[in-house]
Amino acid sequence: MVGVTRADVEAAAARLGADVHRTPVLTSRMVDARAGRALFFKCEHLQRTGSFKIRGALNALRRLEPEAARRGVITDSSGNFGQALAAAGGSAGVAVTVVMPEDAPSVKQAAVKGYGGRVVLCPPTLSGRKETVQRLAGELGATYISSNDHPDIIAGQGTAALELIAEVPDLDAVITSVGGGGLLGGTAVVGSSAAPPVAVFGAEPRGADDTARSLAAGQHLPASHHDSVAKGLLVGMGRHPWRIIRSRVSDVIVVDDDAIVHAMHLLWERMKQVVEPSAAVPLAAVLAGMLPASLHRIGIVLSGGNVDLDALPWQRR
Amino acid sequence: MVGVTRADVEAAAARLGADVHRTPVLTSRMVDARAGRALFFKCEHLQRTGSFKIRGALNALRRLEPEAARRGVITDSSGNFGQALAAAGGSAGVAVTVVMPEDAPSVKQAAVKGYGGRVVLCPPTLSGRKETVQRLAGELGATYISSNDHPDIIAGQGTAALELIAEVPDLDAVITSVGGGGLLGGTAVVGSSAAPPVAVFGAEPRGADDTARSLAAGQHLPASHHDSVAKGLLVGMGRHPWRIIRSRVSDVIVVDDDAIVHAMHLLWERMKQVVEPSAAVPLAAVLAGMLPASLHRIGIVLSGGNVDLDALPWQRR
Repeated sequence: MVGVTRADVEAAAARLGADVHRTPVLTSRMVDARAGRALFFKCEHLQRTGSFKIRGALNALRRLEPEAARRGVITDSSGNFGQALAAAGGSAGVAVTVVMPEDAPSVKQAAVKGYGGRVVLCPPTLSGRKETVQRLAGELGATYISSNDHPDIIAGQGTAALELIAEVPDLDAVITSVGGGGLLGGTAVVGSSAAPPVAVFGAEPRGADDTARSLAAGQHLPASHHDSVAKGLLVGMGRHPWRIIRSRVSDVIVVDDDAIVHAMHLLWERMKQVVEPSAAVPLAAVLAGMLPASLHRIGIVLSGGNVDLDALPWQRR
Repeated sequence: MVGVTRADVEAAAARLGADVHRTPVLTSRMVDARAGRALFFKCEHLQRTGSFKIRGALNALRRLEPEAARRGVITDSSGNFGQALAAAGGSAGVAVTVVMPEDAPSVKQAAVKGYGGRVVLCPPTLSGRKETVQRLAGELGATYISSNDHPDIIAGQGTAALELIAEVPDLDAVITSVGGGGLLGGTAVVGSSAAPPVAVFGAEPRGADDTARSLAAGQHLPASHHDSVAKGLLVGMGRHPWRIIRSRVSDVIVVDDDAIVHAMHLLWERMKQVVEPSAAVPLAAVLAGMLPASLHRIGIVLSGGNVDLDALPWQRR
């Protein structure tokens, strides 16, 4: 298995260039007062396609051999990664096919098409999805791109932390959400290789806590029951991220859905930022007081802002 | 009547110093494509207290004579200006009393108190409010501070445009919403005195269009029927702003509530920014295609972000 180094992340940053935004870092006196710490929010919800995922997607596409790039790529993410890969395909000149269950919301299908991707519907079952991806990959000769389980994806996602640590001096730690593990893995590569090193933490919903359980067990455990308001994190951690996370992440903090919704509401009300529930998970962990007291200056990656404005979680309850 | 000059706005900026945020300027490829122009959004919804109003409020407090400052100030704005004045009082060391109708939402009363202001409730009538303000002003010896109709307020509000024009080169125009006229007046002072000059436009809801009607009539008309989703703009334009606006504003564009809600939704969905309806009025005017075609690079002041997250206008319809 191939590792990911700081040089890989730096090369990814050069490869992405101006096709990816250098997103702003926001702060809030009010939220700092609540947290009792100085927080620096890296605004990846303001990234192209509304999440950090275009970083890894575009890096992976630009790493393809020319012949593979000509044949195109395929993925089966119907969430932020599908949109990000479609948009990255536009920047890299690579045809992108996204396989989605036939009951996927039309707004998600429209988003992929809006970014120039092709949508193919499949039966809404795991086997139906796998069969469709395999059949199409064979027919098209398309390369399958995982949303998280590949070194190029991890290196690309790490570029957000590269920017954050370069912009904010003397960070004690960076905390990100963890679903498939690409963002946390890439961040851990960057934090552990910074001079001086910056501690890296993950934050995970109680209903999808396979990373925390894996760390506690010392081995990669499969995803078990998966449910949370943070739908974007309902993905099992991949093998490649696990190799990094197991040794370079200080801790993964588990939070309840109520705390996630509370943190999300705070980000909307006080910082005026439209973030999705998954993006609020790290702040929920900080507000729960579960970081070591010695850490004062904390970077938080706001991972995405793609949320249904007609169904907000504090209204559904 | 005392005028407002560029030197007054520059002096206000020096007076505000670090007690007011230099708010970021955001852009969006997607919104630019919709508008067919390059738009630069000055994020005053990220300002302290969630609106630009602390700029004018703090400038006015720091301009008080020491004796007046010791006696404190009073206002009757229950919206963004009340909160802003309360917070400014904390920064300037001036006691602030805000008179509110007794049916004012408890969240608005709590916000003023949270910023350190004193809330006094009054009968929910115009006469009840006036009597309470006059009685208290007499008892306390407090100075009445208008939310818009004073040169110090106008000069303070102009500092947002000063920052915007300094940060974004080659702007063709700046557009702001207009309610009481303090923001538009201050912006017009700055735009008309810039080198080269920058055209300044106002944008107003159909249900509170006294500024557009005044310009058309060539005289200061009173507010008539006042109703709009943009509650923050349901204030008649003041006499001091009118003196500036009549000669230094290129045009005031009137938009319907539907267009305001559409623009607000776009700012939330595509730019991930929580803005209030009033803040979306200028974008609504731009999207309506009502600016001269020769203007390509447009600065837009996003005036505030204080909105009830449980009652969004696209859900109420």
